[in-house]
Amino acid sequence: MATLGNEQPRADAREALATLIDVLREIVGSSGLLLDDDVRARHVGMGSRTSIQARVLVRPASTAEVSAVLAACHAAGVSVIPHGGLTGLVHGTDAQAHEVILSLERMQRIEAVDTTQRVLVAEAGVILEQAQNAVAAAGLLLPVDIGARGSATLGGMVATNAGGNRVICYGMMRDNLRGLEVVLADGTVLDSMNALVKNNSGYDLKHLFIGSEGTLGIVTRIVLRLCEPPAGRRVALVAVPDFAAVCTLLRQIDHAMDGRLLAFEVMWQDFYHAVTTPPALARAPLPQHYPFYVLVEASVGDDHQPDRFEDTLGTLLDAGIVVDATFCKNERECAALWALRDDVAQLRRFGPLVAYDISLRLADTGHFVETLRSMIAERWPGARLWAFGHLGDGNVHLAVNVPDLDAQRRAELDALVYAPLQALRGAASAEHCIGIEKKPWLGVSRSPAEVNVMRSLKQVLDPKGVLNPGRVFDIEQGGI
Amino acid sequence: MATLGNEQPRADAREALATLIDVLREIVGSSGLLLDDDVRARHVGMGSRTSIQARVLVRPASTAEVSAVLAACHAAGVSVIPHGGLTGLVHGTDAQAHEVILSLERMQRIEAVDTTQRVLVAEAGVILEQAQNAVAAAGLLLPVDIGARGSATLGGMVATNAGGNRVICYGMMRDNLRGLEVVLADGTVLDSMNALVKNNSGYDLKHLFIGSEGTLGIVTRIVLRLCEPPAGRRVALVAVPDFAAVCTLLRQIDHAMDGRLLAFEVMWQDFYHAVTTPPALARAPLPQHYPFYVLVEASVGDDHQPDRFEDTLGTLLDAGIVVDATFCKNERECAALWALRDDVAQLRRFGPLVAYDISLRLADTGHFVETLRSMIAERWPGARLWAFGHLGDGNVHLAVNVPDLDAQRRAELDALVYAPLQALRGAASAEHCIGIEKKPWLGVSRSPAEVNVMRSLKQVLDPKGVLNPGRVFDIEQGGI
Repeated sequence: MATLGNEQPRADAREALATLIDVLREIVGSSGLLLDDDVRARHVGMGSRTSIQARVLVRPASTAEVSAVLAACHAAGVSVIPHGGLTGLVHGTDAQAHEVILSLERMQRIEAVDTTQRVLVAEAGVILEQAQNAVAAAGLLLPVDIGARGSATLGGMVATNAGGNRVICYGMMRDNLRGLEVVLADGTVLDSMNALVKNNSGYDLKHLFIGSEGTLGIVTRIVLRLCEPPAGRRVALVAVPDFAAVCTLLRQIDHAMDGRLLAFEVMWQDFYHAVTTPPALARAPLPQHYPFYVLVEASVGDDHQPDRFEDTLGTLLDAGIVVDATFCKNERECAALWALRDDVAQLRRFGPLVAYDISLRLADTGHFVETLRSMIAERWPGARLWAFGHLGDGNVHLAVNVPDLDAQRRAELDALVYAPLQALRGAASAEHCIGIEKKPWLGVSRSPAEVNVMRSLKQVLDPKGVLNPGRVFDIEQGGI
Repeated sequence: MATLGNEQPRADAREALATLIDVLREIVGSSGLLLDDDVRARHVGMGSRTSIQARVLVRPASTAEVSAVLAACHAAGVSVIPHGGLTGLVHGTDAQAHEVILSLERMQRIEAVDTTQRVLVAEAGVILEQAQNAVAAAGLLLPVDIGARGSATLGGMVATNAGGNRVICYGMMRDNLRGLEVVLADGTVLDSMNALVKNNSGYDLKHLFIGSEGTLGIVTRIVLRLCEPPAGRRVALVAVPDFAAVCTLLRQIDHAMDGRLLAFEVMWQDFYHAVTTPPALARAPLPQHYPFYVLVEASVGDDHQPDRFEDTLGTLLDAGIVVDATFCKNERECAALWALRDDVAQLRRFGPLVAYDISLRLADTGHFVETLRSMIAERWPGARLWAFGHLGDGNVHLAVNVPDLDAQRRAELDALVYAPLQALRGAASAEHCIGIEKKPWLGVSRSPAEVNVMRSLKQVLDPKGVLNPGRVFDIEQGGI
């Protein structure tokens, strides 16, 4: 078993780090290296006020520099924590004092928007929104879109297999990645910059690195497929009487729109009420007494198509699957509806929140949420739960407020949410990954045999355990 | 380095096999075990007259039996060759006398067609067409379709990441697989039967096994996503004046049909001529003098949509991108057009054929084929090349006839086809995999560093090298 960098005695680690700093400066130059206060002046994540604790942040400007940095850290046995846009929610990028942060922020080159092959070739530090804009300017669409588009980097999105709002139509980052370049723990550069749609030549190694949270390699460049943009979109908010009707609605509208359903976002009543009641600024587009609200978005190609979208929802209204509906007449109204769905911050007025991102089979979801709501209310009178999410993908986001939350209550709450998922074959992370936060709950959807294989892969690709240690699972057998 | 089963001295191997047979009979019963002549009465593949050379073929009826069989073979150090529908083209299932064949033919249970979660749960031995029919009966669509649907098994299609006719719309087997159960070399059962759309809980291990040709594990059960079936389809055959116009046509029709382009199959003139000239039975739906013919298929959802398909192609006809076109008026005509495209057997009248399945970037494809055609004609006067394929996916199939083909000419021909692909960042296998046949050409698209990682993965998951040895790459460093 390799000794992890962060498990070495602190004094040894500090000494190794001091020696390493000179080597790193040689590689990236003075402007590529931040030390001590310059590092601590940065925060650990978007909107956070907590300072980064590491002493060293290195900013390589090329793959060759990333390779040299990793080789140096590997030789020194010092752990490396990769930083992208820091928009994660599971402490996947937390660093300790003796660890080196490797930021991709100087690798922001868009190398090509190839309109014949329909791929984007870019460095991993490119911000999603920059990439989206460059692709749109070339008349194409970058299929993955997430709320954090203004900060999240493409490399971070690969490392966390980002999902977002249009997974139901375009899939997750994994489904859109054609190729990547990744630097292994010892500095070896693995060039898998495949731009082909099909390549059944041996094992498809890129999948090892997608969603592995920087624990197997540092993604430095990527090739993303691009799509033809929809000619237009139609958005509606519909009210639904019960969860069975939500399931029926999903199949019926997906069937009618023939592969062009772009989003199917569900808000449980409590959530809808919170985001449409003052001090929230938005007014309620539909009355607040319905059990479920669904934001439905579809791509429409020509003048005939809006009829089809409205006709289908109209038929479902007649059938009682939908009980109320409002259609957006223009882009401003579409944006306003999406703003409702995205106004999670609104819930903070009720107190501190614990956020969950779970995955369930659709048929189990309605019952699961109601049971959980009852259990929480029973355990802590006054506690509240708001549910919403990408229901088209079986992905529920939960926000929970528990009075006087402390570590023990938090642990109890986690157990209430996660423990029942195992029997339902759900998952503790739909799209946010495991990081440090969800490590105790990896076993909800992964068996000990699977985690043992994960450990073996980690051992092969990072035998010294220097890449983002302590994330996803612990190296030691026993605890997963 | 572990010693491979098939590299042991033959006498030792025979002795180990004799002992093993009794153990295997205990596991699967007499009806589950075929020996000697009963094995040799079978052929190595669809339409082949070559007998299987192995002495033992074991037919487990459950995952537990597969596990016990693998554990026994592993303990004995005997190699195991997995057999599905035997429709492969790269000698991926060839077995030697001292190897044990493991056939999934008794594992054909369709466990569930779940119309809410929209997944198929099935054993790996299920034939694709059986699965397609069961899914269609439930009102859904199994998205992957290949020509060998009547023989190919789902497990084999996972192991080879099958593609086929509708990759442009639905992706390959990898893109449609939600979960799998796989038995590792030592008999460990890895249950990754995930039915969720999203599950970012640690490494997504199923991707190791998809497309790894049975060298890392034996797939025993699968979960496949299902789609809403298109309401209808429109098929046209269009003639195109040059390859640049083929590229333009692809983007324009894909754009216009807004994600509902189902197929984009190109026939170069020689191919079209061969399949529409007697003794071929089909008449030419368009004159035979055009450089390129494209079979375009799109899903259409209602009465308005056919206009859109025809209007777009009409506009492209006016613009000279398309120079002739014929639209299918009914299912019979659609089937007849597809039959043209699929009539590869017709080429056999010109003599023995060598078939290639290569992947290229679209922009390179036209020039590559013409250059190759010239080189072959120059090298062997009278030699002929026919090109066709899934151009929407950058996948070209080549059929080549070289007079008096012998091993040396075959090697020269392979080099003419494959060697230029490396500089173009193409691939020697788009969808047929590597098997034994393409092993010398794995390096066209995979670097030595990548192949070394593949070797490491093989070493971790199959340290004795007993699973389908000799496929994809050689275990020894040096030769890839």
